[in-house]
Amino acid sequence: MTSDDQLRAALHAALPEGVLESSPYARAMYRRDASILKAEPLAVALPHDLQELRQVVSVCRSLQISMVPRGAGTGIAAGAVPGGAPRPPLVVGLQRIDYLTVDPEQRTARVGPGVVNLELDRQANRHGLRFAPDPSSQISCTIGGNIATNAGGAHCLAYGVTSQHVLSVDLLDAEGELHRFGVGSPENNGYDLRGLTVGSEGTFGFVVEAVLQLLPLPPAVETMVISFPTIGAAAEAVTAVLNARCLPAAMELMDRGAVALTEAYAQAGWDTDAAAVLLLEFEGLPHQVTDEVAVALAAARRYGGHNERLASDPTRRAELWKGRKAVAGAIAKVVPDYYLHDVVVPRSQLARSLEQVLAIAAEQRLRVINVFHAGDGNLHPLLLIDRTEPDIEGRLLAAGRAIIELAIAAGGSLTGEHGVGLEKRDFLCEVMEPEELELQWRVREAMDPTGRANPGKVLPTPHSCADLTPSLVPAGAWL
Amino acid sequence: MTSDDQLRAALHAALPEGVLESSPYARAMYRRDASILKAEPLAVALPHDLQELRQVVSVCRSLQISMVPRGAGTGIAAGAVPGGAPRPPLVVGLQRIDYLTVDPEQRTARVGPGVVNLELDRQANRHGLRFAPDPSSQISCTIGGNIATNAGGAHCLAYGVTSQHVLSVDLLDAEGELHRFGVGSPENNGYDLRGLTVGSEGTFGFVVEAVLQLLPLPPAVETMVISFPTIGAAAEAVTAVLNARCLPAAMELMDRGAVALTEAYAQAGWDTDAAAVLLLEFEGLPHQVTDEVAVALAAARRYGGHNERLASDPTRRAELWKGRKAVAGAIAKVVPDYYLHDVVVPRSQLARSLEQVLAIAAEQRLRVINVFHAGDGNLHPLLLIDRTEPDIEGRLLAAGRAIIELAIAAGGSLTGEHGVGLEKRDFLCEVMEPEELELQWRVREAMDPTGRANPGKVLPTPHSCADLTPSLVPAGAWL
Repeated sequence: MTSDDQLRAALHAALPEGVLESSPYARAMYRRDASILKAEPLAVALPHDLQELRQVVSVCRSLQISMVPRGAGTGIAAGAVPGGAPRPPLVVGLQRIDYLTVDPEQRTARVGPGVVNLELDRQANRHGLRFAPDPSSQISCTIGGNIATNAGGAHCLAYGVTSQHVLSVDLLDAEGELHRFGVGSPENNGYDLRGLTVGSEGTFGFVVEAVLQLLPLPPAVETMVISFPTIGAAAEAVTAVLNARCLPAAMELMDRGAVALTEAYAQAGWDTDAAAVLLLEFEGLPHQVTDEVAVALAAARRYGGHNERLASDPTRRAELWKGRKAVAGAIAKVVPDYYLHDVVVPRSQLARSLEQVLAIAAEQRLRVINVFHAGDGNLHPLLLIDRTEPDIEGRLLAAGRAIIELAIAAGGSLTGEHGVGLEKRDFLCEVMEPEELELQWRVREAMDPTGRANPGKVLPTPHSCADLTPSLVPAGAWL
Repeated sequence: MTSDDQLRAALHAALPEGVLESSPYARAMYRRDASILKAEPLAVALPHDLQELRQVVSVCRSLQISMVPRGAGTGIAAGAVPGGAPRPPLVVGLQRIDYLTVDPEQRTARVGPGVVNLELDRQANRHGLRFAPDPSSQISCTIGGNIATNAGGAHCLAYGVTSQHVLSVDLLDAEGELHRFGVGSPENNGYDLRGLTVGSEGTFGFVVEAVLQLLPLPPAVETMVISFPTIGAAAEAVTAVLNARCLPAAMELMDRGAVALTEAYAQAGWDTDAAAVLLLEFEGLPHQVTDEVAVALAAARRYGGHNERLASDPTRRAELWKGRKAVAGAIAKVVPDYYLHDVVVPRSQLARSLEQVLAIAAEQRLRVINVFHAGDGNLHPLLLIDRTEPDIEGRLLAAGRAIIELAIAAGGSLTGEHGVGLEKRDFLCEVMEPEELELQWRVREAMDPTGRANPGKVLPTPHSCADLTPSLVPAGAWL
């Protein structure tokens, strides 16, 4: 078998100057994404355009090298970690393919995969438009990554997840074939391969271009931050607001721990005495927004909502949002790292599930804060990490496992908006029958017959299901 | 090879009394759906429940018989016509599997495939809810058929097509395996097979149950009917309304011919002097609706909109809608039959495309009326047919072909909301590359490895693309 060094030399020889990074430093840099797993790649390719990417794919095809597509590396399920494959794959970073054109007339944007979510939104704003999916990492995450994970965000309650805003995708598969799926493409007939590709986490190949739907900016927006005496009351208020025929554009819930941490850092004026604080945002025509705010406020007050603060001009709204958006920065001030989970529970089980999360963290002596999209039951427990603590690995993994299992037991889902990746792969053994996994594998093989597109991700092998107790961490991948 | 009579005898022997209909009369009844094609099935199975359906699938598996799932037979692309297969398949009608439970708390409905769309909506209405997709055939079409074709309807402009309202589907494949795909099912992980199944036109097997999302009924609704001096002006007004940051729940356009026909039948008071009449509907909170109606009316008037009639109480709204909903009845009064097309053009090309449709009909000496969902550019030219006219077949097919080709040339799509079926199958040869068809076939084979689920539909064989000029009518299938 060809050695890794020989493969690296062959890659260097085949690719233009400046595309391949294979130094030990580069390989170390690309071991991780925003999950807690790591594995070293064969090397890293950073093509500047589609033509260079096609060269990368072509040489990998000749040399039978697997490839891991990567955007900004903000994924939390290890979808861009080059682990889980029999041999080290090539990480292919797409950040440089970041062209962007907005068509204000058609309300669409044509983008390369490396375009940063917030940059797209800013360009759209100049035409009175916006890109609705807004993951919390939008300042750095890329559209390619959003498509790979079918990302959500604070506003997906009203506007839906990424898939609903992707009109077409161009897929370069691992064999080098270029496909266009979706609206306006000939392949819009037959089966919905656009929808199948969105959320496939790079296992079909590379999304090299997408046409995205942009929405008009709403004429009026109003943001409300309101305190609650208990987490349970806040969860009930979420349901009451939705039942009052309001559909807020965003419903973000933070627990006491999250508010305390963020206030110490950002002083957004959120209520540190409250057990939970809810941020609601309403959008639309002015009268509509006024109506909905009144209806939602009345509903929230019935469940103990108090200390509300309202803002409708952009500056004051940004001040309220600061309490939510400063979370990552606030964490960085107090601990070196965090481990973010992403599970979904039925909304009726929100309060109970949050209590269970707190109990799980307490049992493992871990500090946890909760910040999440309450409207759709998407929990995001953040476990605060100092990797120098004794036995931190074991306690983190035990907590992570327990959180995933509580979501499954509650009738929820083990992933909300961040994908399965490598981290949750083996948990599918617990929730899916072998026949279903086999069907999923058949579909994957239809889309990636040689299995060289992000191997080891998303689906467990039938073999691993038979042999192993699911583990958050494939052997050797941890830290 | 076993004869058809022997197969029918074997089916009778294997199935419970009352499930199989194999008389020449029954076979003649199930030759057609609402398209213009026909082909005789081996027999017709009408199972009462999942258990009987599983027996049907099981015996078909043993005898290697193909199956054509059928709902109410209102499809217009021949998706339920048992043609296009090498041997006559069994038609399996699912109308009898029509259980329905509404969960008002979760805002969902659990339904069998045979539930009629309007019946579901009525049951939901009793809880202040509704099922948003409302195909024009909603008085008779079934949810199973809506899912098979990913049906739209008048209100899909604001609420999206069927796929966006289907939380999960249970699929019984042709091998007898039962799968659950989608929200709340373990198989919600991995690839989006729920989305892949919606719109697959029965080629993966039978959707035997679905959990559907219901939406709250809007507190206020206002309907407007407004006249225009030209079709072009009405098309411009559609764009102007959408650009005014209004999203009407429905935007239905009827041309002069359609209005004349309908008024003669139903006297809904629509303006027979207008070149085109637009029906707009707005929904939401009362202030919001008032605002949007004012904005839309101003936009429409800039393009010559006049003679507007407005209604907000249910009775008067229903009177306005009568002008749109009476179309099928009105046609039945003047001709024995019609041939409904379903293509999509970019909204910017609406006016031009409609003129081309009129020219195509004139060239073939056919009477055409246009009634369609203007907001999304989904054209529905209705060719009025008297099958006793000389050379009607040739003229109809030439017109149908020309209409599909104008949509392709305009950068649109050859199917909007009614599927590909048998009728449009071979047109995919014109719009898809062989590699794309091959990929589509791989996906199909992943989902239906033995190819016994609705064979001959949706995808052309690579062979047929190589050999044939696309034809609307496979040999022997016409009339």
